[in-house]
Amino acid sequence: MARVNRMVTLAARPVGMIKPTDFKVTEAPAPEPAEGEILIALKAISLDPAMRGWVSEGRSYVPPVAIGEVMRAFSAGVVEESRNPDFKPGDAVTGMLGAQAYAIANGRNVMKADLSAGPIERWIGGLGMPGMTAYFGLLEVGQPKEGDTLVVSAASGAVGGIVGQIGKIKGCRVVGIAGGRDKCDYVVRELGFDACVDYKAGNISRQLREACPKGIDVNFENVGGEIMDAVLAQMNTFGRVAVCGLISAYNATEASPGPANFRSILVNRLRVQGLIVTDWVKRWPEGVKDLVAWNKAGKLKFREDVRTGGLDAFATTLPLLYTGGNFGKLVLKV
Amino acid sequence: MARVNRMVTLAARPVGMIKPTDFKVTEAPAPEPAEGEILIALKAISLDPAMRGWVSEGRSYVPPVAIGEVMRAFSAGVVEESRNPDFKPGDAVTGMLGAQAYAIANGRNVMKADLSAGPIERWIGGLGMPGMTAYFGLLEVGQPKEGDTLVVSAASGAVGGIVGQIGKIKGCRVVGIAGGRDKCDYVVRELGFDACVDYKAGNISRQLREACPKGIDVNFENVGGEIMDAVLAQMNTFGRVAVCGLISAYNATEASPGPANFRSILVNRLRVQGLIVTDWVKRWPEGVKDLVAWNKAGKLKFREDVRTGGLDAFATTLPLLYTGGNFGKLVLKV
Repeated sequence: MARVNRMVTLAARPVGMIKPTDFKVTEAPAPEPAEGEILIALKAISLDPAMRGWVSEGRSYVPPVAIGEVMRAFSAGVVEESRNPDFKPGDAVTGMLGAQAYAIANGRNVMKADLSAGPIERWIGGLGMPGMTAYFGLLEVGQPKEGDTLVVSAASGAVGGIVGQIGKIKGCRVVGIAGGRDKCDYVVRELGFDACVDYKAGNISRQLREACPKGIDVNFENVGGEIMDAVLAQMNTFGRVAVCGLISAYNATEASPGPANFRSILVNRLRVQGLIVTDWVKRWPEGVKDLVAWNKAGKLKFREDVRTGGLDAFATTLPLLYTGGNFGKLVLKV
Repeated sequence: MARVNRMVTLAARPVGMIKPTDFKVTEAPAPEPAEGEILIALKAISLDPAMRGWVSEGRSYVPPVAIGEVMRAFSAGVVEESRNPDFKPGDAVTGMLGAQAYAIANGRNVMKADLSAGPIERWIGGLGMPGMTAYFGLLEVGQPKEGDTLVVSAASGAVGGIVGQIGKIKGCRVVGIAGGRDKCDYVVRELGFDACVDYKAGNISRQLREACPKGIDVNFENVGGEIMDAVLAQMNTFGRVAVCGLISAYNATEASPGPANFRSILVNRLRVQGLIVTDWVKRWPEGVKDLVAWNKAGKLKFREDVRTGGLDAFATTLPLLYTGGNFGKLVLKV
């Protein structure tokens, strides 16, 4: 029985915003698992802001995806064939399995997903990479203390929404930054943030000052650019800035200026620290355990924005992340 | 006997580079020490890059010096009269005693200087604020490990020269950045740095790459601007940037752009942290002890650039710091 694999491959290196022609879907016979391997039928692909960096030339924390290569993606699926005693057909698994219909894995680079704790798309969302990014990034880098004011940009996004809720669990005043009234309402009413700054409503600095009367102790930064600059100017002494993303610059074709308020780092003795979720990969089970427990206790909500259209829709769905077009964790159903 | 105090006071808030007319010397009867106080005849005034910030309006870590007020300065002198049992005439002391001929202190805000370990100007230099900045800034914030590559900007300056020598003591490859051949030669031949990048010779990035073939693990940053940007681009994963000074922007009249390579913080998971020496004020004796011991063991050299001309020369001597006109710790003899 020859299964056909469909793969999203990189057709051209994007210049500026991703275009549909930067990717194409190709077909090939699905690979057969060798001894010790499993064949996974993928069900859901995680669309992440970091993907823009993965298709760019230049030095980064991982090599760029090559032209013609299957697009790198965190994805989830179900074991279809197993030649590995640790897995059986029907097991749900997640991992860096690419944007494709079938993937082979040797078992060491995948994690089993317990579907009783959440549907499969959640295991590439709140219980996957974005959830772990929020959990370890906030707790290990941001180090919020009870009573701190925490500001989270891209607050309605996959990572930001969880960061803010963890901040509330840890006793912080939590202020989000999001684009538009709907997202701000969601962040405050649904996720329980104390306030939300609408960056589309103008005067971010004044809105921020009103929302953070005691200044800002922790900033979980997903956006960069003028939003981060406004935050930097209002940081308190010994504040922490967890730099998780700088999405405002990911599609820029010219060099983006750095933060004009960089001097705040010196004057206020800030600790500004970058983070990549894979740095804590050995501790993921710890994060999953806490997030599942908080979710069951009603303290933590997840929101997935699941898009249909399959692999053919990859190139038209991914740009939503950079235009604010998604609402919650963006997932593409295979 | 009426002693006359001469005081450098702030005459106008500087715009851009400090001008002679921004300060004036005024005279008044010297104050008399009250019970518990001492009268100090100041001998040497420390001229520090931070002074530019102290005379600027705006939020900083200390309030700005007011117009008409005695200029804030770390200075050193000799007790002339004592009404405090812990001090006797002839004791050498240092502290935030201002740019003036006489100062009153209550004993709690001054530190005794042991002149057997170094002349009085050294107690406002290598064994004073700059030395402590280098010691705690590098060891506590930079956290160099044996085998690390450490890059120090303003390497021939009061702080930078000591930072690099401590880096060598801790087993680092130490690369300085300084302006001009003479300073670079001094840094390498006299202070024992492994290499020095001459920022006046152009192509800082290429010079830096040649001097740091294994990339940069720790950056002790005194300058900011394009020099810091070049360093940021070559930082290794999990590197540390101790932000001690951003002197390149101190006299700017327009907002200086932030580092274009800010993204390196994210990609390389850097820890970028600001520092102000007074944060470790309770631990100063620890730093003085180590620096004196290293100096006696021949592992650490100090260099003071002592200027005469007295208080009248304050306003014309201070700008040397911002034009690279000093060579070693800039001190003004009273």
